[in-house]
Amino acid sequence: MKTQVIVLNGGSSSGKSGIVRCLQAILPDPWLAFGVDTLVQAMPASMQSSDAGIEFASNGEVIVGPEFRALEAAWIEGIAAMGRAGARVIVDEVFLGGADSQLRWQKALGDLSVLWVGVKCDSAIAASREVARGDRISGMAASQANVVHQGMVYDLEVDTSHAESMECARTIAAHLT
Amino acid sequence: MKTQVIVLNGGSSSGKSGIVRCLQAILPDPWLAFGVDTLVQAMPASMQSSDAGIEFASNGEVIVGPEFRALEAAWIEGIAAMGRAGARVIVDEVFLGGADSQLRWQKALGDLSVLWVGVKCDSAIAASREVARGDRISGMAASQANVVHQGMVYDLEVDTSHAESMECARTIAAHLT
Amino acid sequence: MKTQVIVLNGGSSSGKSGIVRCLQAILPDPWLAFGVDTLVQAMPASMQSSDAGIEFASNGEVIVGPEFRALEAAWIEGIAAMGRAGARVIVDEVFLGGADSQLRWQKALGDLSVLWVGVKCDSAIAASREVARGDRISGMAASQANVVHQGMVYDLEVDTSHAESMECARTIAAHLT
Amino acid sequence: MKTQVIVLNGGSSSGKSGIVRCLQAILPDPWLAFGVDTLVQAMPASMQSSDAGIEFASNGEVIVGPEFRALEAAWIEGIAAMGRAGARVIVDEVFLGGADSQLRWQKALGDLSVLWVGVKCDSAIAASREVARGDRISGMAASQANVVHQGMVYDLEVDTSHAESMECARTIAAHLT
Repeated sequence: MKTQVIVLNGGSSSGKSGIVRCLQAILPDPWLAFGVDTLVQAMPASMQSSDAGIEFASNGEVIVGPEFRALEAAWIEGIAAMGRAGARVIVDEVFLGGADSQLRWQKALGDLSVLWVGVKCDSAIAASREVARGDRISGMAASQANVVHQGMVYDLEVDTSHAESMECARTIAAHLT
Repeated sequence: MKTQVIVLNGGSSSGKSGIVRCLQAILPDPWLAFGVDTLVQAMPASMQSSDAGIEFASNGEVIVGPEFRALEAAWIEGIAAMGRAGARVIVDEVFLGGADSQLRWQKALGDLSVLWVGVKCDSAIAASREVARGDRISGMAASQANVVHQGMVYDLEVDTSHAESMECARTIAAHLT
Repeated sequence: MKTQVIVLNGGSSSGKSGIVRCLQAILPDPWLAFGVDTLVQAMPASMQSSDAGIEFASNGEVIVGPEFRALEAAWIEGIAAMGRAGARVIVDEVFLGGADSQLRWQKALGDLSVLWVGVKCDSAIAASREVARGDRISGMAASQANVVHQGMVYDLEVDTSHAESMECARTIAAHLT
Repeated sequence: MKTQVIVLNGGSSSGKSGIVRCLQAILPDPWLAFGVDTLVQAMPASMQSSDAGIEFASNGEVIVGPEFRALEAAWIEGIAAMGRAGARVIVDEVFLGGADSQLRWQKALGDLSVLWVGVKCDSAIAASREVARGDRISGMAASQANVVHQGMVYDLEVDTSHAESMECARTIAAHLT
């Protein structure tokens, strides 16, 4: 059964999107790549700073509200439908809810063949890369580095602390069935 | 039956994305907004300059290949699934294939309640706005201004030549059921 | 004496940057374009949210501190030096300090031939364009629409309320000596 | 004599801009940061694809024409003037002309206290980071990795192949006088 969906889960500045672009470059078939950023940008601007939507606290913590969760549920169904319609899809996610988040995706993805990948990065290194990237909201990297992996079950883990995005992508590509 | 999907179709620089943001701001419910740009950005970089993917000719013409069409078909199924899962969705599109493009969307959207909106703009005005926006590939606005509306059937047309995005958004909002 | 510097002053979302790109497109000589955004992006990230640097209040008001003013003074000297070295330069500014801001630029530009242009826009229209552009900080357009023109002396004024960027650019181009 | 200007020279994807943001974050005084990208963005769009301006060949090579050189000369004078007016400035450059480029800057910077820093990166690693960054024009990293350092004289060299941006920034900061 051929892998249809790759889910990468890791904290902010852990290097997920670099791995995604390398995967898209080295995999022989074309893969679509979507992330939580795609969803956030699709939402009304007002939901990006409201209790019902998403809130970026000054310490870098991210809190999402009930309206965000409702739209996210539909979004996840949509990604699953793209897979069922034949597209290969890479999902780049930040599972703030840990195992609960994984469960939501598992239910929607159903019988699609999924490779679950944990993208880890030493918290201090992720924090320094956050500075190098110039993100306005500092603190997200440190705040998310560990919490997003709590209770998660992965097929594979990569660590970007001392490995290039391309190396991690090759490791992941070797695990596709 | 309440409108679940709004499809805006218009050429490059016709002002669709401004209307989308105004709609998201004035509509009481939260609407997700996706466009052909979302899809293109989700594709591998290599497909953005290959015969199989999408090609931007130097005169501004856009040609899409078979691999693009295959991923697009899955993308459309995904958007339809989001609507069926309860999300209200605004789709911002450039129907290079005119009526054929509409047919593809109609099949996928099925029994969802859709408002079809044509976003028109005088070709010369769109071309001058293309310069003002600083898009690198000039000529797209003029090349697409009329062709995207060929054979289309709309519930509503707006013209941004002499109307602000917000005015157009209010007109569209008044037609939602 | 040939115009060496064009200074465009107007509030946020008044349409300055669109006019700048049209000017660069229609003027026969190559003009460099810089704006207050260029300066802000050149500053340390920390100065974009500190009392010493620049602060974006939640109502859209912008407050700049002493360290911002010091770096800005050097920046203005740099722009003037580019003009003296032979470059034609368009400056896209938001004179929060009105006439005081103009005086600072006048001192630095000295004997360079400058065309001072006021870019006006009806406050309500600018506010609606701010929504259409999707800027996160709403309120800047309304907050700045009038205050930036207080006490200013212009060679020329354009109003983007009902004129396209390209029309405004042609009007300005016709005033160059 | 206190360092007034830091010039970082390195090829595309060598990691210069990450180092710049880390330097701005860790240095106690506020430093302005400008790069060749700032200059390119200030030019008319038409110069970004013409023989007189700048040209990005399909193999990633960059060729600049006479009008580019003329505007660049004025730009360099402007940066020098900002330094003389008291601003501390970090310049992020790609010296395609090697030693000739350095000479142009040295003449303009004159008696300002400058720290010249070479930012090196293994060519294959830079090429893989180029893929991870998703730059459309691939080949720039490999094409520039070595040529930009030919004939250069540095006060200090850093190598990003196996060091984080923050580590490199700390090394540079330790060399400021």
